[in-house]
Amino acid sequence: MSRNETAFLFDLDGTLVDSVYQHVLAWKESLGDEGVHLSVWRIHRRIGMSGGLFANMLLRETGIEITEDRLERLFRGHAAAYARLAANEAVRPLPGARELLGYLTDSGIPWAIATSGRMETAAHNLAALGVDPGKVPVVTRDQVRHAKPDPDLFITAAKRLDCDIGKALVIGDSIWDMLAAQRARALGVGMLCGGYGQHELEQAGAFRVYEDPADLLKRIDEIVARS
Amino acid sequence: MSRNETAFLFDLDGTLVDSVYQHVLAWKESLGDEGVHLSVWRIHRRIGMSGGLFANMLLRETGIEITEDRLERLFRGHAAAYARLAANEAVRPLPGARELLGYLTDSGIPWAIATSGRMETAAHNLAALGVDPGKVPVVTRDQVRHAKPDPDLFITAAKRLDCDIGKALVIGDSIWDMLAAQRARALGVGMLCGGYGQHELEQAGAFRVYEDPADLLKRIDEIVARS
Repeated sequence: MSRNETAFLFDLDGTLVDSVYQHVLAWKESLGDEGVHLSVWRIHRRIGMSGGLFANMLLRETGIEITEDRLERLFRGHAAAYARLAANEAVRPLPGARELLGYLTDSGIPWAIATSGRMETAAHNLAALGVDPGKVPVVTRDQVRHAKPDPDLFITAAKRLDCDIGKALVIGDSIWDMLAAQRARALGVGMLCGGYGQHELEQAGAFRVYEDPADLLKRIDEIVARS
Repeated sequence: MSRNETAFLFDLDGTLVDSVYQHVLAWKESLGDEGVHLSVWRIHRRIGMSGGLFANMLLRETGIEITEDRLERLFRGHAAAYARLAANEAVRPLPGARELLGYLTDSGIPWAIATSGRMETAAHNLAALGVDPGKVPVVTRDQVRHAKPDPDLFITAAKRLDCDIGKALVIGDSIWDMLAAQRARALGVGMLCGGYGQHELEQAGAFRVYEDPADLLKRIDEIVARS
């Protein structure tokens, strides 16, 4: 029997940390090195989904052959380019992210993080947010079978909190978060700070859209009763 | 008495050339060097407007003092960061851009380019597109009093073509292009390839929205009679 409480299940990149555009250009560079020239906005619209699905969509659209070797080079190229683009404190927590998490903790509202990224890339972002993965549930790509837009990451996060996913809020910046929220029967809350438009998030199922964590915190009564 | 023809007036960055995301991160870097930390998506939503207005909006939002010196450093910092991010062919024409311009030329449909950028930054993009500014009207920021969302750039472009702006189509990826189109009494045609959402462009006045130049060319009958 899980706790009868509303849990906040957060995406990480683009929702709590301002890192989407660096990820986008890092993928562009890594794909370009493989001779795949996708328009940058198309990469932007795929960010946040599972890397495997990302590769499959590429395969369908560009017709190049996806081999294990090529995938491995793509992921390694992305990681190297991202590390360069995100160096020197170029990637920061989004406005209000630390305050929002602090408010939830102080109010006793359960929260967790669920990201399509892997722990080694998430670790830097968690440190910037002041989140200790020893104390807060952090579910990463390597811990579930399917990443977003499948619901596994958020369902696992709710289980770790011992909360009912059907009462949870999924906070994310991409349509993959919103689709995963619907598939998990959670409520999706969209964030503009990842660069999607409001209507795109609403069309994917967001029941409310905020600019960024600071905006959500200011109007949090709209989505959960203040304790 | 101007020619009774529909002219195509194109924005450059994000509409014909895939350079928006590099400009966004270049501004982020340049602003960061001045101690101004704006979320990246907010910079994205300002790209394409006049640099002066961009600076004024920053001033209002962040409360920092905008001096001549600081502005000069911001613009120089952006140019240096952009040159680095756009090196090694990282910036390419968008799919179908060359073909669309070629189709218009072959069909005798008048077209011009109107960009909030300056000629020194536009020159590289024009070369990549195969556009010779000696043959095609290219109106840059330094040639008009007010840049977008003021209508001056597009009005000047129509004049150079000796076409009626009231019969012209303005093709752009940002809401600043669409607002300028309305203020000029032209029709705005939105392009998703700059990373805005379709609804954002429609709300700003786009009467039709395409993915990119290739998509527009495929369905060009929707907006102009084939010759």
